[in-house]
Amino acid sequence: MTIDWIGVDWGTSNLRAWAFDGTGRPLGPARGGPGMGGLAGQGAEAFETALVAALGDWLDGVAEGVRLPVLVCGMAGARQGWQEAPYLDLPLPLDWLGAGALEVGTRDPRIAVAIVPGLAQRDPAAPDVLRGEETQILGFLAGRGAGAGQGAGMGAGMGDWALCLPGTHSKWVSVSRGILRSFRTYMTGELFGLLAGQSILRHSVGGAGATDPEAFAVGVREALAAPAEVPARLFGLRARHLLFGEAGAAARSRLSGLLIGQELASAATWPGGPAPSAGVAVIGDDSLAALYVEALGIAGCTPETVSGGTAVIAGLAALRRGRTEEGPKCAN
Amino acid sequence: MTIDWIGVDWGTSNLRAWAFDGTGRPLGPARGGPGMGGLAGQGAEAFETALVAALGDWLDGVAEGVRLPVLVCGMAGARQGWQEAPYLDLPLPLDWLGAGALEVGTRDPRIAVAIVPGLAQRDPAAPDVLRGEETQILGFLAGRGAGAGQGAGMGAGMGDWALCLPGTHSKWVSVSRGILRSFRTYMTGELFGLLAGQSILRHSVGGAGATDPEAFAVGVREALAAPAEVPARLFGLRARHLLFGEAGAAARSRLSGLLIGQELASAATWPGGPAPSAGVAVIGDDSLAALYVEALGIAGCTPETVSGGTAVIAGLAALRRGRTEEGPKCAN
Repeated sequence: MTIDWIGVDWGTSNLRAWAFDGTGRPLGPARGGPGMGGLAGQGAEAFETALVAALGDWLDGVAEGVRLPVLVCGMAGARQGWQEAPYLDLPLPLDWLGAGALEVGTRDPRIAVAIVPGLAQRDPAAPDVLRGEETQILGFLAGRGAGAGQGAGMGAGMGDWALCLPGTHSKWVSVSRGILRSFRTYMTGELFGLLAGQSILRHSVGGAGATDPEAFAVGVREALAAPAEVPARLFGLRARHLLFGEAGAAARSRLSGLLIGQELASAATWPGGPAPSAGVAVIGDDSLAALYVEALGIAGCTPETVSGGTAVIAGLAALRRGRTEEGPKCAN
Repeated sequence: MTIDWIGVDWGTSNLRAWAFDGTGRPLGPARGGPGMGGLAGQGAEAFETALVAALGDWLDGVAEGVRLPVLVCGMAGARQGWQEAPYLDLPLPLDWLGAGALEVGTRDPRIAVAIVPGLAQRDPAAPDVLRGEETQILGFLAGRGAGAGQGAGMGAGMGDWALCLPGTHSKWVSVSRGILRSFRTYMTGELFGLLAGQSILRHSVGGAGATDPEAFAVGVREALAAPAEVPARLFGLRARHLLFGEAGAAARSRLSGLLIGQELASAATWPGGPAPSAGVAVIGDDSLAALYVEALGIAGCTPETVSGGTAVIAGLAALRRGRTEEGPKCAN
């Protein structure tokens, strides 16, 4: 078992690293480490030290004079991260991403680190940025339609996609034939956390343990029917508790349904967004992604789904193929 | 100068008390005291002690065997307050409010305390509650159209009103001919505080000191034009900072404009709300109320305005008239 290169997803809250063989397959499970958030402001050395510690004995077999490629995506490339990997602009053919990675010098002579850049949408009417999701998107597309000889998996037959990546800040991304054309960020997850945990609603909304699927569906339907009325419905969760004794689990799920439904109503009518005929996919496999799939179903849409882990591994492999002429072109 | 009765506005964050003469005019400026929030859970004695301390030498001249009427509105009547004054239901003729005040026993023999009830909208599709604003609303109406012989100032010619009471939780209230028919609560102020102070936007939104009126107007216009798109614009404030270096004051004002504009767009199309011909008024005189007046102007509406202090004093006086047969009917 020879390690050919290492791929790292370095987010705000944690680091996950995979050792890959020469065909682009991970050799085993991920190794973990500290997120960018805990290291921010501590300088490049702290990032290098944390990375080398996470890789551990994967570096033991590296021959003298050889540097093992380490490809890093995620917030490690943000301004507060290891080193800023400047944003690439849209529209962007996704198979250019690997070549755009920023090489970062290290004191450890066994690794050659490159950080994947984020993307910037410099439209003054809808400015936006993303960092990390580009790799999952690439992985989703590579896993869907890549055939032999299609480079990083961006075959011409890939069609149009509206990709939803749920999270604290969810992203909706319009991709057409392998070109990332535009995207939007919704602060839905953060907004939910603030309203449920910090606002007056905290007295009426139950803890994260219990959920109420029917109340979630009611919230989604209310928001889809009248998205601009959602701000008028939030305090109703408190009033429903005070006047009718509504349970905390119901209030929590209804709040979640209102906010996700509001996001879907907006994402469905996105000026300059995906074509109405575009396929819809949700990238993610946690409980939040499941809520988005549920809400999309209520909206009459059956999205494709792929797990976030699968997408990021496939994305790192596609990025690696994009960085090396001698890499296999047909592995998937 | 004889004190005939005392009126108290006892909110979450502070207490204000006025001594009134027999014609319903305050004899001087308010005296202050601690808000309900700081006393919650400490029992009735703590509330009585705080009230008596705030009234101070106003109670010195009370004759033996006489109890000076003290009329209290606001959160002191909430479940966590002095004693819960149960909600009255809608629709409610506002001149019934005074008679509905809850008498509260005290150990101090010099005062006879009554707490004004809040209002409940028990519509399962739009449940809502308010407490404190009812007094300001009554005061606004009393100050507008009261003529001699019209009781608490609810003359039949008072017409239809859409009243906006800005605050942490703003209220929009539909009043028709002195009857409070329905209302809505928007958490706009609290949402602004959470987004500006706690969310990822805090890195891009400036402090409370500086404002940018033009950026506020842009936000209002964007929200009025496409209220359901506001959730898609919030993260744009961060992106605009990262990509274009937008100043913190502009981001703060734009956020404020987006959220207030979103509220106005919803309040303008309120099912079961005020008639389109209803007069619009903003009750409040702080900087937040000024922003609402500004935003309403951008929406093409020129509201009447009254200061919150004027409204609550007039409201307490109207409530007092509603509680006493022998009180003057024509004072204003």
